Amino acid sequence: MIEQNLLPFEFRIFESKNYHQTCEAIKSMLVRGAIALEAAAGSALAQAFLEAPADDVWSFVDQAKKEIEATRPTAVNLFYAVKRVYDSAKQSNDPVTGAQAEVQKMMEESVLATKTIGEYGAELLKDGMNIETHCNAGWLGCVDWGTALSPMYVAHRGGKKIFVYADETRPRGQGARLTAWELQNEGVPHMIIPDNAGAHLMSQGKIDLMIVGADRIATNGDTANKIGTLEKAIAAKYYNIPFYVAAPLNTFDLNCTSGKDIKIEERSEDEVLYQTGPNEKGELTKVMVCSPGSHAFNPGFDVTPAELIAGIITEKGIIKADAEEIKKLFL
Amino acid sequence: MIEQNLLPFEFRIFESKNYHQTCEAIKSMLVRGAIALEAAAGSALAQAFLEAPADDVWSFVDQAKKEIEATRPTAVNLFYAVKRVYDSAKQSNDPVTGAQAEVQKMMEESVLATKTIGEYGAELLKDGMNIETHCNAGWLGCVDWGTALSPMYVAHRGGKKIFVYADETRPRGQGARLTAWELQNEGVPHMIIPDNAGAHLMSQGKIDLMIVGADRIATNGDTANKIGTLEKAIAAKYYNIPFYVAAPLNTFDLNCTSGKDIKIEERSEDEVLYQTGPNEKGELTKVMVCSPGSHAFNPGFDVTPAELIAGIITEKGIIKADAEEIKKLFL
Repeated sequence: MIEQNLLPFEFRIFESKNYHQTCEAIKSMLVRGAIALEAAAGSALAQAFLEAPADDVWSFVDQAKKEIEATRPTAVNLFYAVKRVYDSAKQSNDPVTGAQAEVQKMMEESVLATKTIGEYGAELLKDGMNIETHCNAGWLGCVDWGTALSPMYVAHRGGKKIFVYADETRPRGQGARLTAWELQNEGVPHMIIPDNAGAHLMSQGKIDLMIVGADRIATNGDTANKIGTLEKAIAAKYYNIPFYVAAPLNTFDLNCTSGKDIKIEERSEDEVLYQTGPNEKGELTKVMVCSPGSHAFNPGFDVTPAELIAGIITEKGIIKADAEEIKKLFL
Repeated sequence: MIEQNLLPFEFRIFESKNYHQTCEAIKSMLVRGAIALEAAAGSALAQAFLEAPADDVWSFVDQAKKEIEATRPTAVNLFYAVKRVYDSAKQSNDPVTGAQAEVQKMMEESVLATKTIGEYGAELLKDGMNIETHCNAGWLGCVDWGTALSPMYVAHRGGKKIFVYADETRPRGQGARLTAWELQNEGVPHMIIPDNAGAHLMSQGKIDLMIVGADRIATNGDTANKIGTLEKAIAAKYYNIPFYVAAPLNTFDLNCTSGKDIKIEERSEDEVLYQTGPNEKGELTKVMVCSPGSHAFNPGFDVTPAELIAGIITEKGIIKADAEEIKKLFL
């Protein structure tokens, strides 16, 4: 796994030796992003199968499963992956090999799905377009390609001239740190903007289209994504700029009929009150960026109502964000 | 002057010995905020009168005037103050005393105007209300009271229970640093929120009203203010939350008939790419908060169209943000 919490200041690969190390990597956000978490959690369970004593595989694995599920309890894809690998192993004559094969298959499917999302989404991107995105929904958060960024990569590799405005995405700065880093690696022309500048750029006709990822999509099309997504979607609507969500089918929560059912994780206020980055000597340093003694409220996500979403780019094509079309995806 | 660029980590008063030092204070943003700049620029010219050789007052003062006006060429109030003090001295038998008296008068008027804004604005604030504000429009940026914050101070001192959500206001963080610091000093219950969280709080019914300051108001009501104001105004409209601008009459630019005429200052990308604050030892440290090598676009202000503004709180009362009502203010 790429050690995402060291990026963009250091690039290092972490080789996890056992399921416990993978759990720690998930908890510490060494690995993050819905689809990357799916792969990591599935792999953790496959590791548990490998580590389990031959004469007592299932009690070892059942315990490991609980630990893996407890790492980030709000991540839908994590539960999906664990269940899928577990069920597949259960039905296999050789659970250890079965689990490994299923993880491999899941990751290959994920690469294909995100590539397909890129191909569908790229049809929306015309030569010369300026595209805004929020947070990081690229290959770092997936196995490859990405969700929101995948169409941009496909368009760019296909020779279309596009320009990307990456919202810095406070408080954790995934846009300024990760999306900008990915776009640099891909050679896609881009600039970081403060989250505050989005509507201004839209008002100046500088944004043609906006694409974001998703953490969870309800069956009516309401979409939970990184905090600030809602604000952009409202501004895009005001300026008649198409606002798209890109996500594979695993992101739809079929138990969730509207955004009202989605619980929003409240994160530590320290993410708002402090910032960490390299100082002039290159040493990672934490500095205070607020009035000492004040407190902050730090919701991790928000819910964008379906009415603000022009369409959802999936591996089965671009659909409207409504219950009818979403239902058809799963027929 | 309070050394605002040391706040909130250190409180220090700067005593300017001559007009040149005051110019430096304006340039370095030791003093900031439209009305504080008005007072500082007017005072600088009065200092120039004091410093001028008795036998050659006007050529010395004319030169000083140019230097003062060159400190921050986009600040409307600064030009207003310099012109007012200059013209008044010109008409006075004793220019040196005349200039000083005019500055004193201008500052007293400013205190009265902002206090009156507070009294009118406080009528909008009901017991139990949650109010959001953007950037810093408090007494730090004025001579006293403030513009957007003045109604909150009047309401709070009057015993109303209000709660303030202060947008952190990236990239310079005036909300997290200055507004939070002012509210602490005034004992007003508050929390800092990432700029991204505004619409989410609105969607949850947690914001009853929003008040912001203004850097310049066109005669049709379009309002230039700190970057990000526009985004909040659009979100407030979407959720039917009243969005008010608080500003004294000096903030109206009668030469400007619409927001389209307002040029937006583009600021250094370093404000986005780096953050400065005390490290764990309390030493002010600059850290990088982006992917090294990426660039940022950093507009300083945006323009909120009049249609998104519920009203403008002035020292002559609360008016609609339209050309007719604004015209009446100046009759």
